[in-house]
This record gives sequence, structure tokens and C-alpha cells, in this order.
Amino acid sequence: MSESQGLKQLRRSDFGYFLSYRTRWSDNDQYSHINNSIYYHLFDSVVNTYLIEHCGQNPQTSPFIGLVVSSWCQFFAPLSFPEVLDLGLRVTKLGISSVAYEIGVFREKEEHPSAVGGYTHVFVESGSRKSAPMRKEMKDGLEKVFTAKAKL
Amino acid sequence: MSESQGLKQLRRSDFGYFLSYRTRWSDNDQYSHINNSIYYHLFDSVVNTYLIEHCGQNPQTSPFIGLVVSSWCQFFAPLSFPEVLDLGLRVTKLGISSVAYEIGVFREKEEHPSAVGGYTHVFVESGSRKSAPMRKEMKDGLEKVFTAKAKL
Amino acid sequence: MSESQGLKQLRRSDFGYFLSYRTRWSDNDQYSHINNSIYYHLFDSVVNTYLIEHCGQNPQTSPFIGLVVSSWCQFFAPLSFPEVLDLGLRVTKLGISSVAYEIGVFREKEEHPSAVGGYTHVFVESGSRKSAPMRKEMKDGLEKVFTAKAKL
Amino acid sequence: MSESQGLKQLRRSDFGYFLSYRTRWSDNDQYSHINNSIYYHLFDSVVNTYLIEHCGQNPQTSPFIGLVVSSWCQFFAPLSFPEVLDLGLRVTKLGISSVAYEIGVFREKEEHPSAVGGYTHVFVESGSRKSAPMRKEMKDGLEKVFTAKAKL
Repeated sequence: MSESQGLKQLRRSDFGYFLSYRTRWSDNDQYSHINNSIYYHLFDSVVNTYLIEHCGQNPQTSPFIGLVVSSWCQFFAPLSFPEVLDLGLRVTKLGISSVAYEIGVFREKEEHPSAVGGYTHVFVESGSRKSAPMRKEMKDGLEKVFTAKAKL
Repeated sequence: MSESQGLKQLRRSDFGYFLSYRTRWSDNDQYSHINNSIYYHLFDSVVNTYLIEHCGQNPQTSPFIGLVVSSWCQFFAPLSFPEVLDLGLRVTKLGISSVAYEIGVFREKEEHPSAVGGYTHVFVESGSRKSAPMRKEMKDGLEKVFTAKAKL
Repeated sequence: MSESQGLKQLRRSDFGYFLSYRTRWSDNDQYSHINNSIYYHLFDSVVNTYLIEHCGQNPQTSPFIGLVVSSWCQFFAPLSFPEVLDLGLRVTKLGISSVAYEIGVFREKEEHPSAVGGYTHVFVESGSRKSAPMRKEMKDGLEKVFTAKAKL
Repeated sequence: MSESQGLKQLRRSDFGYFLSYRTRWSDNDQYSHINNSIYYHLFDSVVNTYLIEHCGQNPQTSPFIGLVVSSWCQFFAPLSFPEVLDLGLRVTKLGISSVAYEIGVFREKEEHPSAVGGYTHVFVESGSRKSAPMRKEMKDGLEKVFTAKAKL
């Protein structure tokens, strides 16, 4: 089973945190489907909302911020404005100063994702931008959506 | 009373159709508030959702499309990711082939808008891009959110 | 002569500062032209580049920042990716703590604009967000592109 | 040598086609650097410009369009508005109906990329969205920037 097949078979229950996003007119490109870049905007949104609401992160004042060092996405089925999308978040790797997120993009009422992607955050001091260990509150928050089932 | 004062005093009940939008990480610019351009993306989204769901518009197949000929926005208070925003829509002018929309942007649970803006659509044939009278289904849909209380 | 007619007749020589922007795939919406919201992203870009390069502004460290209090745009002709656009900037009002910009969007080699818009910046202290007089370096920079010919 | 190290060592001469993009104010997120999602907007822009200008593609009328099935990016150094970025394009895999692109994002005058990413296009009939072999003009165009040096 290829990696892509494995991701396509994920279910809503594989993700621990969900937010719904109303798509926007300009999310559709001239091929009348959600442009591939938009998925990354949504990934950033669900991750940062989780960090703010469940991990004590404050983007304006926190001494540590997460920098994206790599990102990826696999697209299984087209989506289109004005659909409302459910985004599921899970953590697949959790290190001292870095974390890998995986996000499933689900059409309303569908059990399998239309796309799966993610990225790796390295936490750094906001001033020096040097990597730094995550604070306990951050790590505790991330562990709540950590899955032993790593990305296959 | 200046125009700006009048708009600031609008209430939720002045708008006939509402949708809620979850803001996105990239909506905030480096001043940590929703960038002014993003409001226009939201205006387009609520207008086009209304046209699709209540006026029989299909952006991919309809022989008539709405082109924006002018747009404007007044900003009263900053908003910021990850807030969820309520957008209220009303029609302030309804002609043969053109319509003026006004959109109020409300912070959750607030009675007065944080911003008010809008734009004018001229309907054209999708091929020739020449102006054309609105179809009955379009006009009937728009009349449902038309307000005699024009923008003051 | 209506305001719109007057703006349409503007020429490149009416603007004192120019930058060229390569359009992006996602600037086109599903009607295959540059979406109206994108013009505001471009306005923000030419204005802030001018503030940074000619008025001593540093968005990350300056104690004073410009907040947009109102914006507008009139669209005369459609534009489309992958066109390269020339944006001309001028200042039409210059107060103690506020400035009104006007931006012309020109197709390459064309003498008259395809769209004209602008916005008003009020300068505030970056912490308190209370309005504050512009510093001399800012005002001197803005005066270089100030036009006595106010928006008609 | 890890994959990431290999990509970081790429040079301008490894890419066959270049376009320069002026960054925009809203490309910076609240951490004052170009947001990770923006790179994908730029990838789409350089790829589609190449397809239009060198491969006979017309997004509005072509019977075949390229759909993105997977994408990825590695980020080596932060970039920030108002920098102008040079994007280099190459093709790393060229099949019957699919093509893999790799894009290097270079700061002006720098020899090594600040980020490298890419995506895979599968060409489909624009109506049925079923995969279809590339036309000769498309394939000939893509071969001009094909590199035997596949992504390591």
C-alpha cells in the first residue's frame, strides 16, 4: 500500500481536533476548484488556532514562535467554493523543539479526506530565531492530539 | 452626521442575510490585525454565496455574470485572527442590470459593525462581457435583501 | 464630467512613483480576470514599499504605523494573469497625522489606467494605537509624491 | 547527505527558466516573514506562466488542464516583503500524462536557494477531468527545462 493510499484511507476519528472553515470566493482559481495553495493557508489556520487556544501560544507576545521548515500536501478529490470544509488536526512527531502536524481536509459529512497534508514546526526564540525547547504548556497541549499512528 | 458616523451606527437588524467566517492565520498582516484587503475577499464570498444559494447563479455555467465596477470600505475597529466574524449583507440599490451591496462586518456578539463596505455589480453576458438585464430569478433573490434605507 | 470619468482620464504622468508587479496565478478568480480584492493587495504593496524606501518607515520597529481607515477602487477594464502591471502612486491629501493615497493600475504600455483606487492612512503609535503626528521624514517623503491636483 | 542538504546546495544554473516576483505587503504574516503558503502561490505562477508562454497552454480554452496531485516545500532561510525574489523552474520527471516541477526561490544576487519546492501536475480533459496524454507542444516545452539530475 503506497503512502498516498494510506493517507486516503484515513478517517475523521484519526484526528483529535476539528475546525470548520467556510471557503471564500477567491479560494477557487480559474479552474473553478480550491487552488492547491489555499490548503496551506487552512493548515496554518487550524494549527495556529490550536496553539493559541490549547497550548498557551500568543503570536504577538510569546518569546517562542514556530517556524515552518517543510510542508507537503496530497490531493485526492477537488473541492470548490462555497463548500464548508472540516479540518482535522493531529500530531505525528513530537520532539524537543519540533513538531510534525498532519491535517485532513474533509468535505461535510464525508468520512475520508479529500486531501491530507502537513508541516513541521521548529520552535525558536522570537528575537534570535534560534531553536529552543518547547515550553511544558506547549508540549502538553500538543500531546493531546499526538497519535502513535505515525504517518504511514 | 457624517456618512461614516451613519455606517458605524448600523445594527445587525439592518442586514437581511448573514454568514459566519472563521478568519485565517494569513488574514493578519504584520501589524497583527486583519489586513484591509481581506475584507474585500469576505465581501465577495458572502455576495457570491447569496447569488448561488438564493438567486440561481452558477458561476461556471450561468450566461450572465456580475462584474465589480467599484468597491469601498470604512474601517471602525481592528479585528484579528482567530476571531470568527459575522457578515451581514443587504442591497442598497437595485437597477435593471446593476446592484449595489452593502456588507457589515460584526465581531461575534457585537451589535454594531467593526467595518462596513460594499461594491456594485454590473451583470454582463459571460462571453461578450456586455451589460445585460438581470434575469427574474436574480432580481427576485436580490429584492429579498433590498433595503429602502439606502446607504446614508 | 463624473468622478469616474475624471479618474479614467488620468495619465502615467499624474503619478510620481511607479513599481511593476508580476501578477500571480491565484490573482485570477473563476471568471479568469484579476479579482477585485487583489487590487487592494497591490495598493498596500506599493504604498508600504514607498514608506519603507522613501519615508524611513520600518514596519517591525517604527513607533508609528499607518492604519487604513477607508479604501475604495473603481475598475475600468479587466486585467488578467500573467500580465505585468505598473502601479503609479500619488498623495492627494496630506494632513498632520493622516494621508490619502491614490493608485493607478496600468497595463504595460497603456497611457490610461485600467483601475484607480486608494486609501487613507491614519498614523498611530504602534503600542497604544492612538493617532499621532507624522514625523518629519515621513511627511517629507510623502510630499515628494503629493499632487496639488486633488482627486476630482 | 540528506535530501534537504542536497536541495539547499542547488544553484541558479540548475534551473532553466527564471521569473522575478515582487513580494506583496500581505505576503508577510505576523512574524514579519513571507508566509509558507505564499511560496505555493509563486510556484503556481511560474509554472503556469511557463505553460502559457512556452507550451501553448491557454487556461480558458485548452481542452487539457494540469491538476496538482501533490506538492511540497523545504524552507532554508526566511524571506520578507519588500524583497524581489527570483524563481527558477525545472522539470524533474516527465511522463505520458504527468510532470513533476521543482522550483528554487532565490533572494536577489544569492547563488543558493532560500527555499525549494514543487508539485506534480496530472493532465486531464478539462470537462471530464480524466487523465489524458500531454499534447506534443506541451511535452516539447517541458522537455526544454527537463533535467536529468532528478531531485535527490
